[in-house]
Amino acid sequence: MVIEGVDIALKGLPGVDFLLFGDESKLHELLEEFPSVKAASQVRHTEDVVSNEESAGYALRGGRNSSMRLAINAVGNGEADGVVSAGNTGALMAMAKFVLKTLPGISRPAIAASLPTIRGECVMLDLGANVECNADNLVQFAIMGEVYSRNVMGVEQPLIGILNVGEEDLKGNDAVKRAATILQEINLPIKFYGFIEGDDIAAGTVDVIITDGFTGNVALKTAEGTAKLLVHFMKKALRGSMMARLGALLARPALKSFNKHFDPRLYNGAMFLGLNGICVKSHGGTDGLGFANAIEVAVKLITDDLNEGIKIDFGSLEVERNGSRKATFP
Amino acid sequence: MVIEGVDIALKGLPGVDFLLFGDESKLHELLEEFPSVKAASQVRHTEDVVSNEESAGYALRGGRNSSMRLAINAVGNGEADGVVSAGNTGALMAMAKFVLKTLPGISRPAIAASLPTIRGECVMLDLGANVECNADNLVQFAIMGEVYSRNVMGVEQPLIGILNVGEEDLKGNDAVKRAATILQEINLPIKFYGFIEGDDIAAGTVDVIITDGFTGNVALKTAEGTAKLLVHFMKKALRGSMMARLGALLARPALKSFNKHFDPRLYNGAMFLGLNGICVKSHGGTDGLGFANAIEVAVKLITDDLNEGIKIDFGSLEVERNGSRKATFP
Repeated sequence: MVIEGVDIALKGLPGVDFLLFGDESKLHELLEEFPSVKAASQVRHTEDVVSNEESAGYALRGGRNSSMRLAINAVGNGEADGVVSAGNTGALMAMAKFVLKTLPGISRPAIAASLPTIRGECVMLDLGANVECNADNLVQFAIMGEVYSRNVMGVEQPLIGILNVGEEDLKGNDAVKRAATILQEINLPIKFYGFIEGDDIAAGTVDVIITDGFTGNVALKTAEGTAKLLVHFMKKALRGSMMARLGALLARPALKSFNKHFDPRLYNGAMFLGLNGICVKSHGGTDGLGFANAIEVAVKLITDDLNEGIKIDFGSLEVERNGSRKATFP
Repeated sequence: MVIEGVDIALKGLPGVDFLLFGDESKLHELLEEFPSVKAASQVRHTEDVVSNEESAGYALRGGRNSSMRLAINAVGNGEADGVVSAGNTGALMAMAKFVLKTLPGISRPAIAASLPTIRGECVMLDLGANVECNADNLVQFAIMGEVYSRNVMGVEQPLIGILNVGEEDLKGNDAVKRAATILQEINLPIKFYGFIEGDDIAAGTVDVIITDGFTGNVALKTAEGTAKLLVHFMKKALRGSMMARLGALLARPALKSFNKHFDPRLYNGAMFLGLNGICVKSHGGTDGLGFANAIEVAVKLITDDLNEGIKIDFGSLEVERNGSRKATFP
């Protein structure tokens, strides 16, 4: 799946080179089938792997020669510009944090992903790296998400919203309330919308959705589950009668274009934002097309210089804080 | 909308009587159009109303003669068996808690609702009454949800799951981890599945989904938003070409039966569980059919004696605790 993904990605990204970490003999065998991948790749041999069942701590201590760790090391020592992995999420985050460290001003990295909305796309973070978040974490996520939306998605003035249980200022827990206050007062040209609710995600009310990793993960997976449920009932309904079957046949190209809107492969590639290096996590269960999409996400973050943008924003906050002693943040 | 809802509800529930709280002159005028409602109702006059913008505290202090408060009082003094309101949720919960009190053993009531799944229906709570919950709150929700699923939904042995960011025991915040431990050891014949993720809601993995009010509210609204998004893209796709339009026309009855699965009116009626009295909240923006559904929910909770079932379960926990001094709960 990985090699097939590289093959597909190379068609759209002809200048990109790959370092492939894994079992040399297996990789060489696979590369014989994909000559264009072979031409654009170097193989780095290791037989160690991080399994999906390992705890992050265990992988961090014991996985020093694993393909995952060596791939992250290559980003750390400048050999590679970014890493893409379909492995264990917790281990990948722990190793990436340990090797790459966070960018100045950021205490915790976040997992972010693009989601389809009625108006286009939005980005949501955190999706599960941080089960509990304080106001400062949320504000840092907001700044990173804003830079992503502006630099990578090309939104001129991204609108930021904090996910909450109501739009009123009084509602919610302390972290979201304090984060909202900070974002209203922050000395950055950020457009802060205020609080949004769960149904605003798909409505496209804002460009950047800020939430803690617990709520974000539940919201993302609830959306995935709901989409599956609707498609299930839709298919069932369209198989229900001869007329429905005929109708479905006629509408087939339309239904296909509909399916494309929700093809999880086209949204594959969760970004670890806030690290001093680009790191993208692919779904383990995706196929070549999905993995190619994760590669494209990583390449975009590199070429659009996401981390440089984040450094500039946090740098100007730092100057502001040192200059005026105005303790708006953190 | 309310009177129309009563009219629709009466067709399925011929023995039910109604107390209508509100402006007498307006109500009498409306009742002229609905003779069967008139025959089954008594009007209780008040001109005071709780507005949607009022804070719960303000409504509690200032709304002593409001239609909402008088309707709840009628449940408190035994005149009515339950109350249904389409008003301000926060005010309704605050007043209901103040007037009706919680059932023995329950520290906080929860908002619960039925949701469609691939396998039928599930119940989820809390949906927003308690932004922050500790393990004991979650365990109490689990017991109440189990009784609801068994007594009202007719599930013989309901399966309970706690919403989390992963299925592994190590994941999640302290509250969900401790609640899971308590539910594994509790001395009630409860079938505890363990942790579930967001996509398990629609998959129907369990019958009862336990979560704090923040996460539950976000998950519910995210599901609503996602359903709207899919229907939006589906309609757009089916309007895209002549062939698609023709196909949609042929498949129309099938598409209608599909829509019925997700008609929010048929899921209208959020239940306030844990109060010493039945209280159901209707969406403010629903129509007669939706309000009738909320009435039916209330009647079901009354006739299936939900609160008696909850009292029995908490009573047997109490006996267990006093008898064996085994401090499994709370």
